[in-house]
Amino acid sequence: MRTLQTTSLRVVDNQLWILDQHALPQQQNWLLVTHSEELIDHIKNLRVRGAPLIGIAASIFLALQAAKGASLRSIKTALVQLKEARPTAVNLVNNLSCLQVALQQQHWRDALQIVAWKLVDEDRALCQRIAEFGCELITPNSQVLTLCNTGSLATVGCGTALGVISRGWHNKNVRNVWVSETRPLLQGGRLTMWELEQQNINCQLITDNMAAALMAQGKVDAVWIGADRIALNGDVANKIGSYNLAVLANYHQIPFYVAAPYTSIDFSCSQGKLIPIEQRAAFEITGVKGSFGQVQWAPEQSKVWNPAFDITPASLISRWVTDYGVITPDAVKAGCFSDMTTAR
Amino acid sequence: MRTLQTTSLRVVDNQLWILDQHALPQQQNWLLVTHSEELIDHIKNLRVRGAPLIGIAASIFLALQAAKGASLRSIKTALVQLKEARPTAVNLVNNLSCLQVALQQQHWRDALQIVAWKLVDEDRALCQRIAEFGCELITPNSQVLTLCNTGSLATVGCGTALGVISRGWHNKNVRNVWVSETRPLLQGGRLTMWELEQQNINCQLITDNMAAALMAQGKVDAVWIGADRIALNGDVANKIGSYNLAVLANYHQIPFYVAAPYTSIDFSCSQGKLIPIEQRAAFEITGVKGSFGQVQWAPEQSKVWNPAFDITPASLISRWVTDYGVITPDAVKAGCFSDMTTAR
Repeated sequence: MRTLQTTSLRVVDNQLWILDQHALPQQQNWLLVTHSEELIDHIKNLRVRGAPLIGIAASIFLALQAAKGASLRSIKTALVQLKEARPTAVNLVNNLSCLQVALQQQHWRDALQIVAWKLVDEDRALCQRIAEFGCELITPNSQVLTLCNTGSLATVGCGTALGVISRGWHNKNVRNVWVSETRPLLQGGRLTMWELEQQNINCQLITDNMAAALMAQGKVDAVWIGADRIALNGDVANKIGSYNLAVLANYHQIPFYVAAPYTSIDFSCSQGKLIPIEQRAAFEITGVKGSFGQVQWAPEQSKVWNPAFDITPASLISRWVTDYGVITPDAVKAGCFSDMTTAR
Repeated sequence: MRTLQTTSLRVVDNQLWILDQHALPQQQNWLLVTHSEELIDHIKNLRVRGAPLIGIAASIFLALQAAKGASLRSIKTALVQLKEARPTAVNLVNNLSCLQVALQQQHWRDALQIVAWKLVDEDRALCQRIAEFGCELITPNSQVLTLCNTGSLATVGCGTALGVISRGWHNKNVRNVWVSETRPLLQGGRLTMWELEQQNINCQLITDNMAAALMAQGKVDAVWIGADRIALNGDVANKIGSYNLAVLANYHQIPFYVAAPYTSIDFSCSQGKLIPIEQRAAFEITGVKGSFGQVQWAPEQSKVWNPAFDITPASLISRWVTDYGVITPDAVKAGCFSDMTTAR
């Protein structure tokens, strides 16, 4: 059996370990995943997170279960349950659909291994290509703004948007990264700051409501985000706050880039408003909770609105940077995302 | 000596007490203020906050010191130090300038009493008039969005923007108030939610990066904010995140209203970019701290950018609701704010 060691996943002796991203950066705990119910709970509670990563983690987990002798029936049941663990990110569904096809083969245990490991190798390659393509868009001496975490924690490769930024830093074109903290779950403040500091990349943290003031002062040359799902018309579902930044970038005439692999495209979804948006628990808004501690500042019974994602319309996106290359608004209008379906 | 009892200030037996707004809503602690250094510390640490309120608190404090026999010299020194306690809100400077004039009179102790109490009575009346004028702009069955806290905690009256909203609720025109939590210091999540719930006004809390998604779904009919300083061209300095909301409201064609008394106008300031913006400590961004507890989630040495305020240009403001009435963009362009100087 192959082994794997990435920033946030490990496969050793047919066992899957995940780095608990809910506990980062204060604690670096590796959790052994033995049951599908456990993995579903880790996904729901963002211990494993990032659209590409949850797709890969679920695929590898099922392949390992098969290798350890699980029945076809139990694999099929787990697969269906895993597909529903988080409703917005489409990579999970896309990857598991590939596994579903493999399950129909006679030698389904072998087929599952092959498909799952192919997804791992592919994700690494996809990240690499996104970083190479995206890098061409980064202007010399630039300051970029990013949201949430789209780095090596969120994929098995170098990341999507953060992979581009990181490469831009190493090419000496990026001189500073502004990190929006990304309330309510603080993936920017906790995870992206941690990843960038690990790489000694110059970065500064802001609260999400400071982006506009930063842009007005000319301190942002481009905004880079990832995607949880891309509709065929180019609309993008991504972490809550993405649409906010897209409107601000548009007003300040700053390029707004979405970096994502083809596995984030939903070939069955014509437009963003059809993408389901997950509503999450009130305690995420009335306070914060993590390995750093837990506090609640809002009055006990406060009502909240807590969508985990928002939809950025294609009209606000300057370029989609995918493993196919850099895609322009004109190409999207001409149906380029639909064409990819037939190309695959 | 007069007594005073407002939501956040008390004067009893020539003593000034402030309700510790840093400790709200978990604790309702009244702090006795005996020295100007204490008051300055309370202002810097937002235990007493809200542009109108800090101006009143400082004025009343000096009047009480004078009544208790403080020397002219010590009053003058304290006045100069208080003026510099927070650089952006102009009410503090404006109110203390009125006191400075009073100090030049022969019976300065009496003059100080008269001026300070006049400011108290005036602030109450100003809030009342703002609420009356503003209410006319609220459409039936509307949902409004607000930031920070601009209610009875921030003034000695019913508030500015929140005073309008509250009146709109009692008139049955407002059906829901969206409260943006207002990172980093969470005045929305802590103070506005507390005030609205005290008044049984229907309200829902969001994080600051959710406003755009809310607007896109047609759930916001107007945005209402206060002001820490208004320049003569109509530009407004207010809590960080105000400019963010102004850009979003503009994009979604939602009216954006600023409610403030004439004491928030800086008659010596021609435009917003001349307004000094206070930068605050890093720990406010890397975590949260209050009577609710203290946690830090970002890596230890994270660099941050932490402006307490931003500037909203006049071009993004639909109406300025002041004690003079509702002011239109055309009136501002015609020099209406400058004309008020001569009117006073």
